[in-house]
Amino acid sequence: MKYGVAIFPSKKLQDTANSYRKRYDPHYALIPPHITLKNSFDIDDDQIKDVSNKLEHVARNHEPFTLKVYKISSFQPVNNVIYLKVEPSAELEGLHKEMHTNFFGEDPEYSFVPHITIAQKLSDDEHSDVYGSLRMLGVEHEEVIDRFHLLYQLENGSWTVYETFRLGKE
Amino acid sequence: MKYGVAIFPSKKLQDTANSYRKRYDPHYALIPPHITLKNSFDIDDDQIKDVSNKLEHVARNHEPFTLKVYKISSFQPVNNVIYLKVEPSAELEGLHKEMHTNFFGEDPEYSFVPHITIAQKLSDDEHSDVYGSLRMLGVEHEEVIDRFHLLYQLENGSWTVYETFRLGKE
Repeated sequence: MKYGVAIFPSKKLQDTANSYRKRYDPHYALIPPHITLKNSFDIDDDQIKDVSNKLEHVARNHEPFTLKVYKISSFQPVNNVIYLKVEPSAELEGLHKEMHTNFFGEDPEYSFVPHITIAQKLSDDEHSDVYGSLRMLGVEHEEVIDRFHLLYQLENGSWTVYETFRLGKE
Repeated sequence: MKYGVAIFPSKKLQDTANSYRKRYDPHYALIPPHITLKNSFDIDDDQIKDVSNKLEHVARNHEPFTLKVYKISSFQPVNNVIYLKVEPSAELEGLHKEMHTNFFGEDPEYSFVPHITIAQKLSDDEHSDVYGSLRMLGVEHEEVIDRFHLLYQLENGSWTVYETFRLGKE
């Protein structure tokens, strides 16, 4: 089964992201707005308890932290993804790193650029239009993140939460 | 904010339910297939910690249990909702009851009929057609349920998981 690890920001920030995603992100209906900590990975059903225990350990070793979103950016020319740019922080880096070492046993494909996708699968022309207008809007938001989630993917491509992990919880 | 409490069954059962929901349930994209334990309720942000603690208490007081789905049924004539019928069990009754007494302080609107919706908002004619063909299909499924989730609703009507509670967990 395919699993992934993500942070859902507050309802407020999700509503903001969705106001763009609705028009520009074909994954709009598949998963709420999120920050990916670990991309889709395949594990057997009998490994899920182990993975879950390890993630609980990771969660306990990291305290809640402040998430800052400060502008709208794009991954172009790598790809035509537009996103809410999240300020890199030691806490996010730490969570990401722990989920890509040891038992998870693989290096991340790309360097970690924490973000909340709001538009993707755009043609070059669409990207240029949409990014042109969105980047002007600006965004300035801060909130405390105190949890992340392990999710699995259904056959239709949508994601269901398997478990929540609270940061720093005893 | 609007919250609700639900059980997500296994990927296998969710995939089955989605194969029908895709065509017949306008909520298909808003939430994965689920068994509602507590319908949408409004609470202030500062109450959520309290609610979460109480739900954790409920979860600890109930052990994992076997969920049985054994036929396709309909709520007609009350409404045109078609669903996978879940065999009532002491565990499901207990969970539902605890979430509608004490601090939750309200009696359920209806008697509890545990189910997984696969079709809704059908006209009478559609209902009769769809139910006529679905009820013939039959369904027979058993699995162990060991968790439930607290969710909140976004402005677009979709639901995000706030927290997972494991049954009987120490």
